[in-house]
Amino acid sequence: MDRTDHSTQSLTTLLPKRAGELLYRLRQSQPRIHAITNAAAQVFTANLLLASGAIPSLTIAPEEVASFTEKASALLVNLGTLDSERRKAFPIAIEAARAANRPWVLDPVFIDSSPVRLNAARDLLDRDPAILRCNACEFSALAGESLPPSKPSVAAFAKRHSLTVALTGASDIVSDGVQRTVTLSNGHPLMGMTTAMGCAGTALIAAFAALSRDKFEAAAAALLVIGIAGEIAGEAASGPGSFPSCFLDALYRLDADTIINRARIS
Amino acid sequence: MDRTDHSTQSLTTLLPKRAGELLYRLRQSQPRIHAITNAAAQVFTANLLLASGAIPSLTIAPEEVASFTEKASALLVNLGTLDSERRKAFPIAIEAARAANRPWVLDPVFIDSSPVRLNAARDLLDRDPAILRCNACEFSALAGESLPPSKPSVAAFAKRHSLTVALTGASDIVSDGVQRTVTLSNGHPLMGMTTAMGCAGTALIAAFAALSRDKFEAAAAALLVIGIAGEIAGEAASGPGSFPSCFLDALYRLDADTIINRARIS
Amino acid sequence: MDRTDHSTQSLTTLLPKRAGELLYRLRQSQPRIHAITNAAAQVFTANLLLASGAIPSLTIAPEEVASFTEKASALLVNLGTLDSERRKAFPIAIEAARAANRPWVLDPVFIDSSPVRLNAARDLLDRDPAILRCNACEFSALAGESLPPSKPSVAAFAKRHSLTVALTGASDIVSDGVQRTVTLSNGHPLMGMTTAMGCAGTALIAAFAALSRDKFEAAAAALLVIGIAGEIAGEAASGPGSFPSCFLDALYRLDADTIINRARIS
Repeated sequence: MDRTDHSTQSLTTLLPKRAGELLYRLRQSQPRIHAITNAAAQVFTANLLLASGAIPSLTIAPEEVASFTEKASALLVNLGTLDSERRKAFPIAIEAARAANRPWVLDPVFIDSSPVRLNAARDLLDRDPAILRCNACEFSALAGESLPPSKPSVAAFAKRHSLTVALTGASDIVSDGVQRTVTLSNGHPLMGMTTAMGCAGTALIAAFAALSRDKFEAAAAALLVIGIAGEIAGEAASGPGSFPSCFLDALYRLDADTIINRARIS
Repeated sequence: MDRTDHSTQSLTTLLPKRAGELLYRLRQSQPRIHAITNAAAQVFTANLLLASGAIPSLTIAPEEVASFTEKASALLVNLGTLDSERRKAFPIAIEAARAANRPWVLDPVFIDSSPVRLNAARDLLDRDPAILRCNACEFSALAGESLPPSKPSVAAFAKRHSLTVALTGASDIVSDGVQRTVTLSNGHPLMGMTTAMGCAGTALIAAFAALSRDKFEAAAAALLVIGIAGEIAGEAASGPGSFPSCFLDALYRLDADTIINRARIS
Repeated sequence: MDRTDHSTQSLTTLLPKRAGELLYRLRQSQPRIHAITNAAAQVFTANLLLASGAIPSLTIAPEEVASFTEKASALLVNLGTLDSERRKAFPIAIEAARAANRPWVLDPVFIDSSPVRLNAARDLLDRDPAILRCNACEFSALAGESLPPSKPSVAAFAKRHSLTVALTGASDIVSDGVQRTVTLSNGHPLMGMTTAMGCAGTALIAAFAALSRDKFEAAAAALLVIGIAGEIAGEAASGPGSFPSCFLDALYRLDADTIINRARIS
């Protein structure tokens, strides 16, 4: 058994346990998370943070985003709405987060559809996000690769940029680029029919990153929680209309045992 | 039996069949629809498109709206939020849609409440939308008429502007201004208690317009689908709170037989 | 029995009765309420107004906010999103409301987190809002007090600024600063896990203020209705996901007897 297998075996046991602990600590400590996110994601992001125990704030105004960020425990930067206010706010908020030693998480939404957005994402990637969360199309655009992303290509990108990558899709790949790369296989197809599900999930990554120095663990644990809550919601919902409320209810009620019993990690 | 009666009789049979086919094709082909819509309609519009099988994109940034529009299959322009970004984005997106030979649909929200908005709508009406969707107050403001709209006045307006008009209300009137004008009587009062229901429904008109050269058929079929999903949801919901999720679930599950059995067209 | 006791005793009987009457009149008269509110509150605010019988409008564009406000029956000004459009729109809308003799209600969201926002709130407070709605942190920031707010401190602030204060929290305090100060104890913890619940509730205060010359009564009756609908929803919901739709359904179905039976006023 080589080192990697050993590490992966440990992670399949360790990550569900850590996810339960982080969720418990989130509910206890109720950190404020500042999310500069897109217009269509704001409500669901705020409600997901509240359902998981965190306190959201969402301002995008350049004049006050520093005040909000420096008192928050983590920052989320989502490029889904790239209007002039947000473009001014991004670097100010990131600078405030770095000055206060808070982690920030980058979500480069739809950069595969707009050169302006791809350039913005590349610029932000140079400002030391702790974690990058994206889907396969966004990853390929950012990495400049035409092949579908794989565990090795995700790990290589994470290493090159010294961050954790959380690639979401039917399965999720999370890598710290150094020694840990896992695939998470929980989730439900209705997650893809809920607008801003990915964006809102990234807010939980930010919330967990506020509580854990290990950003790989934070990202993987958050996606595990999201995937399992999605799975439970998918069993309860009648369709994409009832799914989001079932999802938030499941997240609110999720306990450590359920995470351990349902986790599918490889 | 005169020509109009004959035509209407055919339509009462043909439209439900075509609506079922378009919905099936939408779920198969999953076209991307770009919606520049108002702040309060973005989430519901995106979720309605997802529940019906389409893929939404929503950016309003003038710098990138052309990139998004030229790769989309249809464009929706909704005037509900008339901020400076959107005002700049409208003509750019419309030009991109026309250059790429994509249909675009105009939804002149609340133009009866603001002269600025009425002027904006009149300007956009000159840029060849395929379909105009509005309610009675908005129609009267745009047509400069004080009488409540009727089948003949809607048909005359459609003819004058060489487009299809989809007038929504307790009953809907759809006219191509040339030979086909129908009244659709499905729907439920709770639709009027759900903010952005009309706006989001117009996104389905745009999605169907992406799949059908016949814009009258696209508009009437979309409103038929919306009305029937609304009717089913109204039977299931406990009030305006549970209605939107029941509506999206019903839309997601709607099949051709249900459309044919429930359609009320005259 | 001194005058205050007598007055409070009367209010415990009178307010539930008046709340039922105002809700009934709202459903009958369906006034339009203009809400300049934050991005994350727009949809829930609009749906709350619709569920209670009012008609929402939400434009923030400086060029047209006066047209919308002067034809509305009341104005809500919420500082939750302080972007450049809204900052321009606030004084224009307030001037239009005052010129048309419409009441306006101030909701100074998150002013405790940003000096820019606190200054904006202080400026707006000088423009004669009929009612101020805020939580304890926001009240303390605005009043420049470090102690938790109490009935006397709320009453003193209301008197100093010649307005009604509606302070919301686990219990609500409403005071006209002259002779009436009450505590309302309905509500449910899940209200605090629903983003924009406070903001949306303020829209009902504005709607009741449109119907009643007595602004204390309007504010207290609206918070009573919100608290009781929240209580009923909390009994029906499975968590924070299903809570908002249960809340709107409960508000839609709320009747005078239920208000009278459930009201907890002291």
